Amino acid sequence: MAEVETAPGTLRPGGRTARVRAAVLRAAEDALIECGVDGIDLAEIARRAEVGKTTVYRRWGNAGALVADLLEDMAEQSVARTETGSLDGDLRANARLVVRTLTDERQGALFKAMIAAAANDERTAEALHRFYATRIQEWAPCVTQAVERGEIPDGTDAPEVIRAVSAPLYYRFLASGDPLDETVADRAAHAATCAARAGAYAKPREARP
Amino acid sequence: MAEVETAPGTLRPGGRTARVRAAVLRAAEDALIECGVDGIDLAEIARRAEVGKTTVYRRWGNAGALVADLLEDMAEQSVARTETGSLDGDLRANARLVVRTLTDERQGALFKAMIAAAANDERTAEALHRFYATRIQEWAPCVTQAVERGEIPDGTDAPEVIRAVSAPLYYRFLASGDPLDETVADRAAHAATCAARAGAYAKPREARP
Repeated sequence: MAEVETAPGTLRPGGRTARVRAAVLRAAEDALIECGVDGIDLAEIARRAEVGKTTVYRRWGNAGALVADLLEDMAEQSVARTETGSLDGDLRANARLVVRTLTDERQGALFKAMIAAAANDERTAEALHRFYATRIQEWAPCVTQAVERGEIPDGTDAPEVIRAVSAPLYYRFLASGDPLDETVADRAAHAATCAARAGAYAKPREARP
Repeated sequence: MAEVETAPGTLRPGGRTARVRAAVLRAAEDALIECGVDGIDLAEIARRAEVGKTTVYRRWGNAGALVADLLEDMAEQSVARTETGSLDGDLRANARLVVRTLTDERQGALFKAMIAAAANDERTAEALHRFYATRIQEWAPCVTQAVERGEIPDGTDAPEVIRAVSAPLYYRFLASGDPLDETVADRAAHAATCAARAGAYAKPREARP
């Protein structure tokens, strides 16, 4: 299995409830990858997961809620950040992880389907936003540590730097369709580092704590 | 009407064929805005556009082809770039235009629906990529002119700088859900300018013409 940003559907220890959730989320993930968001049919998911239909309808109720729960699960299992000792190195590790995830056949299809689902369903959109908030929070200390090391100006907006690394990769993935590879990842990281060094992500003075 | 990145569905002079196309594209746009991509039903579009069903089926055939044609039309009507005399100013004008488009209720819903449609249909995806290629091409001279003025290094990858301006705006719009406003637009433009000045978008020497 390719190293990916998250490893949804991984079986974790737990009781029957946890096992049912894991099986249903895994089936939902497979359906999204194979057919996109229109592939989420609760009865079919129950059949694939070998779980009673009533359980699935009672617990999740509809496709939007199920995709939202899958996103919660992916956020919980989000891979820990890498520490390399320099901002450019840390951001490069982050960018390469994002590129590996989005170019992985299964994960790429899954992210595309979940983002398309979020366009049509408010609950899915909220879960998607929480997923990215978790990811951004996980990587933000790279930036605060770079401030402490004196690499970038005091008052740099850490979440904004992390967003700036992912942004060109997602723009290619979702909008422009331009290629995604390690060179693109490294350039996204380096551009964010350069802009951070120049103070482009410094918070306005009144916004600082 | 808010000033927007493109003005799809605008009536232009032309013969019957052009009038039919304009009416059908306008109806497709309304359906996408109201119901998302699942709202594209060719018979319903024909009814709304007051055009014969046979004409619509013969000319477009399916929802994917119709969304693709809408994107072609939007690319043709793309708003001309702004020239302010400085890279930061030009990129800021571009970023503010993107933010106005994505935060406009109708245009934002339209872009979200088209991007979701592209996740499920290869032909729509290709049309989406051509739309962004046209937009990027339209704004790239801002960067080449900045090179000529000596603002940024020789060999800067112009399309990549333009992508870098839109990327953080689309990332917020499609993925993270963080707010989109003029401050965010200006920061995206300024970060791209800073990174360009630092040489982060310089093409590798062997890739230059």
